[in-house]
Amino acid sequence: MSDADPQDHKEKMQQRQAEQRAKVAELQDPDKGLVLVHTGPGKGKSSSAFGVVVRALGWKQRVGVVQFIKGKWKTGERLFFEQLDEVTWHTMGEGFTWDTQDRNRDIAAAEAAFGKAREMMASGDYDLVVMDEINIAIRYEYLKIEDVIAGLDARDKRTAVVLTGRDARPELCDYADLVTEMSEVKHPFKAGIKAQRGVDY
Amino acid sequence: MSDADPQDHKEKMQQRQAEQRAKVAELQDPDKGLVLVHTGPGKGKSSSAFGVVVRALGWKQRVGVVQFIKGKWKTGERLFFEQLDEVTWHTMGEGFTWDTQDRNRDIAAAEAAFGKAREMMASGDYDLVVMDEINIAIRYEYLKIEDVIAGLDARDKRTAVVLTGRDARPELCDYADLVTEMSEVKHPFKAGIKAQRGVDY
Repeated sequence: MSDADPQDHKEKMQQRQAEQRAKVAELQDPDKGLVLVHTGPGKGKSSSAFGVVVRALGWKQRVGVVQFIKGKWKTGERLFFEQLDEVTWHTMGEGFTWDTQDRNRDIAAAEAAFGKAREMMASGDYDLVVMDEINIAIRYEYLKIEDVIAGLDARDKRTAVVLTGRDARPELCDYADLVTEMSEVKHPFKAGIKAQRGVDY
Repeated sequence: MSDADPQDHKEKMQQRQAEQRAKVAELQDPDKGLVLVHTGPGKGKSSSAFGVVVRALGWKQRVGVVQFIKGKWKTGERLFFEQLDEVTWHTMGEGFTWDTQDRNRDIAAAEAAFGKAREMMASGDYDLVVMDEINIAIRYEYLKIEDVIAGLDARDKRTAVVLTGRDARPELCDYADLVTEMSEVKHPFKAGIKAQRGVDY
């Protein structure tokens, strides 16, 4: 292969620079809703999403949350937020198993939950939408990464979105405005600590 | 120096093992309030502490929060939690400047705020106490690390504590049951993003 034409190269670089400037300008728009990903093996991925929910509520914003976890599992965040009018809360149906005994049913449940989130994102009614543990549903291939990104892309541009769960797909991290990785600093006694009500769920 | 007596060494090892076992047993007690540190340069240190507050509230637990930040700064979390009866909220006095123009006044404000936290921790009235951004006050030497650890140690043993802020001191990490480090995965457009109401404060 021969080297590219220098004129071609220059045009390509100029185009890339223009795209980059447009992206920076877009991000500087204070009304743009950012896409945030919380991933990594450490604690705090979901809890920091719920902290962001609290901040939004403090500013009288409207929030939607879809939890991609087994529906029967009671969590403190669910007990707390479900009672608030400003929060639309949806936990994936009880049929969801994570144990792949009925993979088709799990896929249907995940798709229905994501449909709910997509609707909220597109509606323009929400300042913030949280998709908690969605990365797990993507990792298990219950949701297609292309569909998730298409849903994000079709959102009302003022709606901020937080997606949580370990092992976030690289395509999602590329799309996101900000990716935070939580890592657990090793502790010799870690293995001895059980999950506690309040702190862990 | 000569090598230690083998009998001495054996006794020392046995003692260390006994201490380790006692520590593991203590941590396995489901009623023990854990000490958690959220540190690192990434986002999510404070917001995940507030997510833990939400979880605790969902389980009808009582929570105290002391924010070691400039008092005038309005945050969504403060606006939200201050209105709840189950939360005792304290933000460091307005006199606090961070700009060290009046270092003695800043130290007095930090000590007063920590005194409030120490009182809540020792009282037995709280399931959870959050000291938000206290690591900054320690780093600036407004608070002595020995005093902070003494306060933690004198807490009611069922009270869980979360301490946030970058650059947590090693002594604090040693004392803590769990340390989570938040790191920002680099993003080319990061510099273009301004702090946003709801997401960032």
